[in-house]
This record gives sequence, C-alpha cells and structure tokens, in this order.
Amino acid sequence: MVDLAIYAVKAQEVIEAGQFLFAEGWSPATSSNYSARIDHNHLAITVSGKHKGRLKPNDIMVVDLQGQPVQSKLKSSAETLLHCVLYDWRDDLGAVLHTHSVAATVLSRALGRVDHLILQDYELQKAFPGIETHEGVLRIPIFENTQDIEALSLETTAYLKQYPMTPAYLIRGHGLYTWGATMADTLRHIEAMEFLMACELKSLTLRCKI
Amino acid sequence: MVDLAIYAVKAQEVIEAGQFLFAEGWSPATSSNYSARIDHNHLAITVSGKHKGRLKPNDIMVVDLQGQPVQSKLKSSAETLLHCVLYDWRDDLGAVLHTHSVAATVLSRALGRVDHLILQDYELQKAFPGIETHEGVLRIPIFENTQDIEALSLETTAYLKQYPMTPAYLIRGHGLYTWGATMADTLRHIEAMEFLMACELKSLTLRCKI
Amino acid sequence: MVDLAIYAVKAQEVIEAGQFLFAEGWSPATSSNYSARIDHNHLAITVSGKHKGRLKPNDIMVVDLQGQPVQSKLKSSAETLLHCVLYDWRDDLGAVLHTHSVAATVLSRALGRVDHLILQDYELQKAFPGIETHEGVLRIPIFENTQDIEALSLETTAYLKQYPMTPAYLIRGHGLYTWGATMADTLRHIEAMEFLMACELKSLTLRCKI
Amino acid sequence: MVDLAIYAVKAQEVIEAGQFLFAEGWSPATSSNYSARIDHNHLAITVSGKHKGRLKPNDIMVVDLQGQPVQSKLKSSAETLLHCVLYDWRDDLGAVLHTHSVAATVLSRALGRVDHLILQDYELQKAFPGIETHEGVLRIPIFENTQDIEALSLETTAYLKQYPMTPAYLIRGHGLYTWGATMADTLRHIEAMEFLMACELKSLTLRCKI
Repeated sequence: MVDLAIYAVKAQEVIEAGQFLFAEGWSPATSSNYSARIDHNHLAITVSGKHKGRLKPNDIMVVDLQGQPVQSKLKSSAETLLHCVLYDWRDDLGAVLHTHSVAATVLSRALGRVDHLILQDYELQKAFPGIETHEGVLRIPIFENTQDIEALSLETTAYLKQYPMTPAYLIRGHGLYTWGATMADTLRHIEAMEFLMACELKSLTLRCKI
Repeated sequence: MVDLAIYAVKAQEVIEAGQFLFAEGWSPATSSNYSARIDHNHLAITVSGKHKGRLKPNDIMVVDLQGQPVQSKLKSSAETLLHCVLYDWRDDLGAVLHTHSVAATVLSRALGRVDHLILQDYELQKAFPGIETHEGVLRIPIFENTQDIEALSLETTAYLKQYPMTPAYLIRGHGLYTWGATMADTLRHIEAMEFLMACELKSLTLRCKI
Repeated sequence: MVDLAIYAVKAQEVIEAGQFLFAEGWSPATSSNYSARIDHNHLAITVSGKHKGRLKPNDIMVVDLQGQPVQSKLKSSAETLLHCVLYDWRDDLGAVLHTHSVAATVLSRALGRVDHLILQDYELQKAFPGIETHEGVLRIPIFENTQDIEALSLETTAYLKQYPMTPAYLIRGHGLYTWGATMADTLRHIEAMEFLMACELKSLTLRCKI
Repeated sequence: MVDLAIYAVKAQEVIEAGQFLFAEGWSPATSSNYSARIDHNHLAITVSGKHKGRLKPNDIMVVDLQGQPVQSKLKSSAETLLHCVLYDWRDDLGAVLHTHSVAATVLSRALGRVDHLILQDYELQKAFPGIETHEGVLRIPIFENTQDIEALSLETTAYLKQYPMTPAYLIRGHGLYTWGATMADTLRHIEAMEFLMACELKSLTLRCKI
C-alpha cells in the first residue's frame, strides 16, 4: 500500500504538468504519459488514453516498479515499463515525463538512421544537471520506434547504464523521454530539450543559406 | 421535433469546440463549421458566418440529414451538406468538425495535383480508431476545392464508401474535415491531423538539407 | 463636439481590438494604430506610442477627418492621416486597423520591388466583402515605406479610388492597413490577411522542394 | 540600505516582466536574468536558477553596482556583473533584461563568425530611442559566448563606450541583453528585437527562393 498523502501530492503534480505540457503543444491528441515517484517501489502514472491538458484525479493511478497496477483496476499507459526501468535504474529520480512534440518528431525523423542528436555550444545545455558550460558536447540518443515496449525498455536501460549522464532520449517519429530529481527539474529538462530541438530544426532549415 | 435537452448539450459542445479551435488558430476569420448529432435524423450545426471563438447559443441551429432547417429561420453553413452526408454514411458518428488551418491550406496546395496525403511511421497515427501501430500507411484524400457543395458531397461520399477506414479528408486550399463517435474523439482527430500536417510541412522545408 | 456615448462605445471597441491584436503578436513594441468612426466627421484613434495590449481610456482620443485633435490636448499617431483619408474615401467605413506582423513585414520585403501581393485559390479569400469564390485573384497593393505620411496618404487614396474593391494594403517592411463597415468586420479582415500571408510565406519556403 | 518601498515596486516590476517573458517563450528552463535599478548604487535582480514565469518575492534580491549582495544571503545570477556594468555605464538606465529566445540563439549561431547583426529598412527600428526613421542602419553587436563573465563585462563595456547609441547586444548561442530608462521601455526593446530577429530568420529561410 502507498502513503495516500504522498500519492495525492504526486497525482496533483502530474495533473499540473499535463496542463502546462498540453498548453505548450507537446502532448496533443491524448498522446504522452507522465509519472512521479511515490516511494522506492511505487509511482503515480497517467491512465492510458486521457486528455493530458484536463487530467482528473481518476486519470492517475499507481503502479509498482514492475508496472503492475496497485489498488486500482485501471489500465496504465502502454509505455509504463519505460517509466519503471528509469526509476529502477536510479533511486534519485522523482519524475519521468514523455512528450510528443512536432520538433521531437520531425528532428528524429529528419536525422534518418543516425542514432543520436548532438547539441553543442548552446548556453542552455547548462539546464541539465552536471553541465557547467556551453562548450561540451551533449549527446541525446535516438531509439527506433517500436510497439514492443519490453524490448525498448531493455534497450534504453542498457544504453543508460553505459552512459549514465544522459539527461533524455528520443524515440524516432514518436517523442521525448526525460527525468529528474523532482517534477520541477523534469519540466525544466523538457523546456530545455524543446528549446534546443527548436534551435536545431531552425538551423537545419537555414543550412547553406548564409 | 428534437429533444431540447439533448440539443442544449450538443449546442454547448459545439460552442466549446469553437473556443478551443479558434484559440489554436484553426478557425480564423469566421471560417469553419462544426456539428454534433442530436438524434438519428438531426444535427446541431453552426449558423453561417459566425466568429467561431465566440459562438453564442443563437449561433447554433438544427438541420435534418437533408440539410433543411428545423424549428429555425436561420441559415446554416454553406457546407451543411458535407456534414449531412457524413452522418448519413455512418450511424455511429456523433460529431463532424471542419477547420481551416495554415498547415492544411499550405500542405494541400503544395502537393499540387496529388490527390492524397500519405502519413507513415508516426506514432501519432495511433490517435485514429483502429490503428494500433505507427508502421502502417495512413492515406488522407485531398479533394479539389469547389463552390458546388452538392457535387463535393457526392464525391466525398463515394470515396468514403470505398475506403471506410479514412479518418479525415482535405479540400485543397481550404481545410480539413474529420469526424468521430463523440465530440472529444473528433477534437482528438483534429489535434492529431494538425500535428501530423505540421510535421509534414516542416519535413518538406528540410528536404535535401540533411 | 462628439456624442459622448458613441465615443465611449467606439473607444472600448478600440481597446478590445488592441487586446486581441497584441495577444496575436501583430502589434508589438507599441507599434500599430487603430481607429473607429464616431460620426461622419470624427474618429476615435489611438494616442501615439501606447502599449496596444493594455490601452487605457486616456490612450484613445478624437480627431476630425483632417487629423486635428478634438476636445483633447493629446497627440494622435503619426499615421493619423492614413486613417482619415480612408474614412473620407468611403462613408460606409466604421473602423480602420493598422498592424505590424512578422508575416506582413517579411513578405512585403521578400517581394522586393514588386508592388503587390497576389492571392489566388484560397477559400479564405471569401472573408472579404463581395468575394463569393476562391477562384478569383485578390490583389493587395504594397506601397514603399516612407516617413512622409502626407505623401503616402495621397498615394494610397489615388490607388483606392482606382481599385475600390481593394480590401487592404501593405507598406513595405512596415505593416498592414485594412478597414471595414464595423470593428468586427475589420478584425475579420486582419485575421484573413494574416492567415493568407502566413500561407504565402510558408509556401515560399517550400518552393522547389516538392 | 535601500528604500524598501522602492525595492518592493522594482521587485514587482521584475516579477511581472518574468510572467510576460516566460509566456512569450523567451526565458525557458530557468534561463535569463532581469534587474531594475533601485537607486544610484543598487539594483533588484533575480536570484540564480529560478523559474522566470513564477518568480516569488524571495526570488528577487538586491546587489550593489559591484555585484555584491545587500541585506541578503542569496546568490544572484551568475551574470550579475553584466547588469552592473550597464547601470554603471549610464545613470539613466532603469532596467536591464536578459532573455534566451530561439530566434536570438539560432540567428547569432547562423551568423557564424560575424560579430554583428545589421537591421535596415524596418519600420520597427523606430521602437528604439533616438531613431526616427526606418532608413538608417541599426547595428547589434554579437559577442562570443564565454563562462568568464568578468571578461565579458569588460568587453561589452568597451564596446558600448565606443558605440553609445547601441540599444542591445547578443551573446552567441546564448541570448539578448537590452536596457532602458524604465521597465516598460526595456520590455518594448525586447519585443522589438524579437520581432526584428524573427523577421531576419524568416528572411534567411527565403533567401534565393523568390
């Protein structure tokens, strides 16, 4: 069983995150899924197929780190396991957000078979933990889209264990996953990634023009 | 005669849809028209030429499936018949929305004489009913614009009877028609189509640049 | 002297127009000026240099058709005369709006020395009075920018007397002027022009790509 | 010690500026920093790392013109010194705003090694003090990004003393600094710069297409 006061706080965080992310256009058409950690083994996560800008209390449910519903008969997002393996990978994660923006979709598709996005010389790289300068190279992996979520959960975990400083990943033609110690940190990472992807997309349209 | 309680609910759905769609920029300058089914033979539909972000109760009226006004002296949208034939085609449709976005206009014109838009490998294709994977091909027909609405109603009906899984269609240089079992479903289809068209437009601007 | 009740209504229309136009991004940085006709010989017009999204009652003043302040010591917009000659040209004009959008600025500059913008095959051309089909050609003149407003007022008037169906004009690198029988009509014309210019700009970026 | 009533007013100006700038998308992911002058030797400035759209009273602090905290144990923005040298340079400055927009980032990077942005023939150049016509050339310097803020403060000061009419500067891949006699003036300068940079970016994407 989970602490209900903590559950209520975390569910509210998820609801408010959805209001912001939908308004930004990053979670259209009931896409996306969001979660917040309740305790070591439990997370509050969005129920499958809900309007992300108008989440109601019963649009949030609890699952354990194996992705099984707890105290609920609802069905969580099809991608629940991608959240679970992130919380399992790092004890200090408090939230995981998955969004579907036009920029993430177009950029990951435009990069064709390339399996990562390179970000460099952007001041905003400093929005991610442990980055103190714009001078380094930030590497965001891009995984191929699949409906086999279990396989993708293994693939992402293997990558992150090898490159633990990675702050986010993309799924091609699909969207962004990012995480943080708190919901506020995780929202900051989304804002930073969306900003950086918007810059990269605009820069690509300018290529050869200057 | 129509059930007035159902009429009131459906009219309110249309009003709220307009507030959202105008705010998104998809129904500018009194363009667009919206409808919701009241019963087997009647729909609530927008009166011609109204500001779609500020629809008032008397900006909605009832027509039957032949497009004739019911209990009203108002004039419904010039494109009423395009709504009627959709409801007549499928008993399970609860709402029809027609919008005029920049993306729908530019993309349908940019495709020149091509009579369809192909969408493939987008996770968001799953926003449409019966689609469980990003791997299939989604074909959205594009009809030539005309002021002869009766001819267009026959042309769209003939197409949809042949390809009944089609979730939406475009009219070139004009806009999008989509439908669903409920108003919420239909709004989700618009959000998904606008997202996918925005992706396609941005991808076209990147072509040959990567 | 003007009818104060009519003045109050017209001033409020101008204030609300500004709230909408600023929010759309079409009147940034205290640019733009708006007016509404009070009677045959008087208009309510914005005072020079005010924030258009937060117009207060004393940011509106009255001028006569010669552009002279009436019952006021305030200074009206430097472009007041461009409004006056429009009201003088046509008795049935109730409002004139001048906006500064990115699209109007970029498109008018991109067209180089061409002195008009041609719009064709857009359903939204029907937003303008007297246009019943998308099939015609809509010609929007582009005047060269100048700080000599008197000269520009003569140039625009001469053009409009020759082509009285013109619904709007552009000043290169500067912005859009449009007008209508009512403030609602004039706002609809701006929405339509901004939509059409956004379509043209996006289409230009696609040229040679399809 | 500072006058507390003036401090409260200036802090509130900073908070409201942040609400506007975040909503515009110009201060994402806790980037940006803002200040307002309290008296000859003191300014109210944002505390490091705060969400700029939701600044609370304790997210603002006072520093002197040497950048040292006054009546506070908080840490001001890493770029505090860039604000201080501007107030030191000109007694008539009442506010300094630093923002991080996509346009400023992409445009400053796209210009490669060029150390300035040239703006010409835009009516909106008149939004800056002392500019009465669109015909002049407005030169906005671009400084290379660095984490050595002291060096950058010397470099910017040297430039501004040589070219005192400069209304703003860019840091490459980083953002915009602008200033004014009041917060309202400074916000107007940001709006104008963002408008002009948006125009320049769109114009670059059109190059060779017309």
